[in-house]
Amino acid sequence: MDGNHKESLSYVYAQQKELSVLGGIGALLGWDQMTYMPSKGANERSEQSALLSKLSHERVVSDTFWHHITTLSKPDVFQTLKESDQAVIQRLKEDIEKARKIPADYVQRVAKATTQSYQAWERARNKNDYTLFKPHLKTIIDLEKEYCGYINLPGPLYDSLLDGYEEGMTTEKLKKEFTILKKALKKILEDIMATAFYEKQQNENSIPMTSEKQKQLSKEIISLMHLPKDATRLDVSTHPFTTSLGDQDVRITTNYERKNPLFSFFSTVHEAGHALYELGMPQGPYAHTVIADAPSLGIHESQSRFWENMIARNKSFWEYFFPTFNTYLDSSNQLNNLETWYRHINQVHPSLIRVEADELTYCLHVILRFEIEVGLIDGNLDIAELPQIWAENMNEYLGITPKTDIEGVLQDMHWSGGSIGYFPTYAIGSIYAAQLFKQLQKETPDLSSIIRKGNLEPILTWLRAHVHQHGRLLHAEDIIKNTCGTGLDSQVFLTYLKEKYYPLYDV
Amino acid sequence: MDGNHKESLSYVYAQQKELSVLGGIGALLGWDQMTYMPSKGANERSEQSALLSKLSHERVVSDTFWHHITTLSKPDVFQTLKESDQAVIQRLKEDIEKARKIPADYVQRVAKATTQSYQAWERARNKNDYTLFKPHLKTIIDLEKEYCGYINLPGPLYDSLLDGYEEGMTTEKLKKEFTILKKALKKILEDIMATAFYEKQQNENSIPMTSEKQKQLSKEIISLMHLPKDATRLDVSTHPFTTSLGDQDVRITTNYERKNPLFSFFSTVHEAGHALYELGMPQGPYAHTVIADAPSLGIHESQSRFWENMIARNKSFWEYFFPTFNTYLDSSNQLNNLETWYRHINQVHPSLIRVEADELTYCLHVILRFEIEVGLIDGNLDIAELPQIWAENMNEYLGITPKTDIEGVLQDMHWSGGSIGYFPTYAIGSIYAAQLFKQLQKETPDLSSIIRKGNLEPILTWLRAHVHQHGRLLHAEDIIKNTCGTGLDSQVFLTYLKEKYYPLYDV
Repeated sequence: MDGNHKESLSYVYAQQKELSVLGGIGALLGWDQMTYMPSKGANERSEQSALLSKLSHERVVSDTFWHHITTLSKPDVFQTLKESDQAVIQRLKEDIEKARKIPADYVQRVAKATTQSYQAWERARNKNDYTLFKPHLKTIIDLEKEYCGYINLPGPLYDSLLDGYEEGMTTEKLKKEFTILKKALKKILEDIMATAFYEKQQNENSIPMTSEKQKQLSKEIISLMHLPKDATRLDVSTHPFTTSLGDQDVRITTNYERKNPLFSFFSTVHEAGHALYELGMPQGPYAHTVIADAPSLGIHESQSRFWENMIARNKSFWEYFFPTFNTYLDSSNQLNNLETWYRHINQVHPSLIRVEADELTYCLHVILRFEIEVGLIDGNLDIAELPQIWAENMNEYLGITPKTDIEGVLQDMHWSGGSIGYFPTYAIGSIYAAQLFKQLQKETPDLSSIIRKGNLEPILTWLRAHVHQHGRLLHAEDIIKNTCGTGLDSQVFLTYLKEKYYPLYDV
Repeated sequence: MDGNHKESLSYVYAQQKELSVLGGIGALLGWDQMTYMPSKGANERSEQSALLSKLSHERVVSDTFWHHITTLSKPDVFQTLKESDQAVIQRLKEDIEKARKIPADYVQRVAKATTQSYQAWERARNKNDYTLFKPHLKTIIDLEKEYCGYINLPGPLYDSLLDGYEEGMTTEKLKKEFTILKKALKKILEDIMATAFYEKQQNENSIPMTSEKQKQLSKEIISLMHLPKDATRLDVSTHPFTTSLGDQDVRITTNYERKNPLFSFFSTVHEAGHALYELGMPQGPYAHTVIADAPSLGIHESQSRFWENMIARNKSFWEYFFPTFNTYLDSSNQLNNLETWYRHINQVHPSLIRVEADELTYCLHVILRFEIEVGLIDGNLDIAELPQIWAENMNEYLGITPKTDIEGVLQDMHWSGGSIGYFPTYAIGSIYAAQLFKQLQKETPDLSSIIRKGNLEPILTWLRAHVHQHGRLLHAEDIIKNTCGTGLDSQVFLTYLKEKYYPLYDV
């Protein structure tokens, strides 16, 4: 490697670092906006966010940056690079090449359209009227199709959208997996709903707990999960989220306003799962590079679902945590039957709202949205028919029908923000989580007894080694394949669900 | 004005806006660092702050920016500008001209030296040993002298430092005012200390109040001061401060850990005074310009001291607030004598630590530092003699002597951060506050009865009209002169003190 290439390398690393640092500042702007910002600060905040986006975008599409990246990517230069530099340059080249396909005016049109569309979605929700959102959704769909034209991956248009959230995943593969999944989930759900236990279960079963107690409980569970106090925060926002301000500054939020303390408890566990992943990203030569990131949203979601469903809804876990949980309840509300409690927190019942869905029915909500998205993008589905399609499919998959648009097509904000191709990553996360859990069980014969002792550290260590430390060195599915033997595999997820839920409902 | 000048104007306003928005982002970084940031976030935060400084600095010293500013400043162009544009361009030209005098390598050397010096100051405090800080202070003094060479104002070197905090103020003027002030303050203090009342007063008189109650009390007082809830925040930090993230997002902090709830109460009032000023800056054509800012630290401090001392330590105020304050105290700690309480919160006694000093003795601490700073900069004072000079002067001015360096020369962080010329602004603020109060009294014959009703809005309205709305359209002293008839005037301050404290101590 001659002097010029050293210069290119140092330029490229410096630019990547600036982008990463700007990303952390952007995360702070977003975190503050959702947690502590006074309401009238909103105008200035949008100026701040817009300026930061501009600064990042200038850097991403800078010709000098691209010149140095392409110089380093030439085979005769590339082969002289260290392995870590090769990994960085290769991944960076893919990212920047993709970003450079998007015209600047398109980025501006999307920013404007999504702002208007989000406002229209809020108005439509207030009036409970999809028709107010419909023309904006049409604009979004057209813009997304235009985007697909720029990215232009082989295969269906939707592949180009999916790639933005789940790099390497294809529409074809998802269609195949989701067809298997949908059929089997419906069957499991029918089996459960036919049981005597399902017949007599009560859906509303709220336990009173003050916000302060819920907060203490949240702090206790994240401490048990080894979320380091000195590198994290737990705050409150309307919708729970996780954000990274830096490799040692990862923040999660929850919400204590719901009647049921289980919302804050499980959402805290979920976000803490995301946070542990963020804190486990590779550093050293990969600090402030494109490698110190998740390879997909699906694998990110696998980490949150893993902790939420496989650990915090696990019977062994509650054998440990049951007495602790009781200390947060008033003497008049003490729980006394572990088995009843375990069934309660794993209750299955079809519901209209995705974010309130249980572990079993959740993916049916996702598959419904995936099918609609594919239909909207390939043009087989008319935007005017959406509420009707939604109602028919809800009825077919879950046996229930939304009475209003808020209970149906208006419930999620994703489309209003231009996020099409995002929903399937939730189901991918559920499947990956089950695959990882099966593998962890295989490699750890005493897993149940470890969990029963409240010792969650070996689990974190295992996830660090098999998932976290790889960052974006591999595609998500390759990380799963290397660890679990197969790529995305609905069958493993289905087996996990049957082994868990059939005994629960005495099927 | 031809097309080219329109282009220059729009360029200049766009750059100013970017600088202002970057400033708001920087304020958020600083606020978060002092309030909520997890400790391990510090490394990434310094990367973020450094990048933001770099982005701002690049814009400030940009040749294109300077070209457009000088184009607009040419007499034949300047005279065609609107009045508001003239004000902006004139002030901006002065700022940028000054910034361009400083070489880039100097900025970097200062950043490095102050980081090391601050760390050395912390180490020196831990060991209670000035000699550990001394060599770093030497470096700082040398750098400050170098800075004076770049700025190169006529008159003593110290003028160039002062100008950075108190534009337009001179060493000569301060020496004159501070000489009068020092002599008179010592005399008032002697008179008070000779009284029987002083003889029997108890210095430690703490009232128990939980942090939660202190917080509620703080919220009550800032509400009474008309600090708008939707554009402000009150949080907790080690040292109280005020910061502006935007014209409608101004945040203050306090601290509830001291034994005495009066610390959080008066510091909240103090910071709220700063915040009201920030919220009152001129907007419209001046939004995001150099005009929407305070013309000096002294006048900023006058606003905080005004609310803290002239209002919240005023007897009329407590005639209103006494019963309210009692609601925050346990039934066993109820206050029952307003006169005793009024004397308690205005107690005078010489003390070693500036930030704990009362209203009367405070300026003596400041004058001591000013004299030392001038001596260090003009070379009449040897850095090795500092502890001795400090002790001698404390003894002369206040009749007490620090036993250790922490009680003396190591107590303030200002010098370690390269802030020399900052201290006098505290005394200037006290003087301006008294001048404004006297004028307000003159214009408002029923002021006492207004305050006695807890109606503080007319006071805010008066400050908005006479101080806030001018932003940086005028120098601080001109704002005071236009309102009060005289510029910096120690005599007014001294009269105020005598009229307040002589009756208090039955002198």
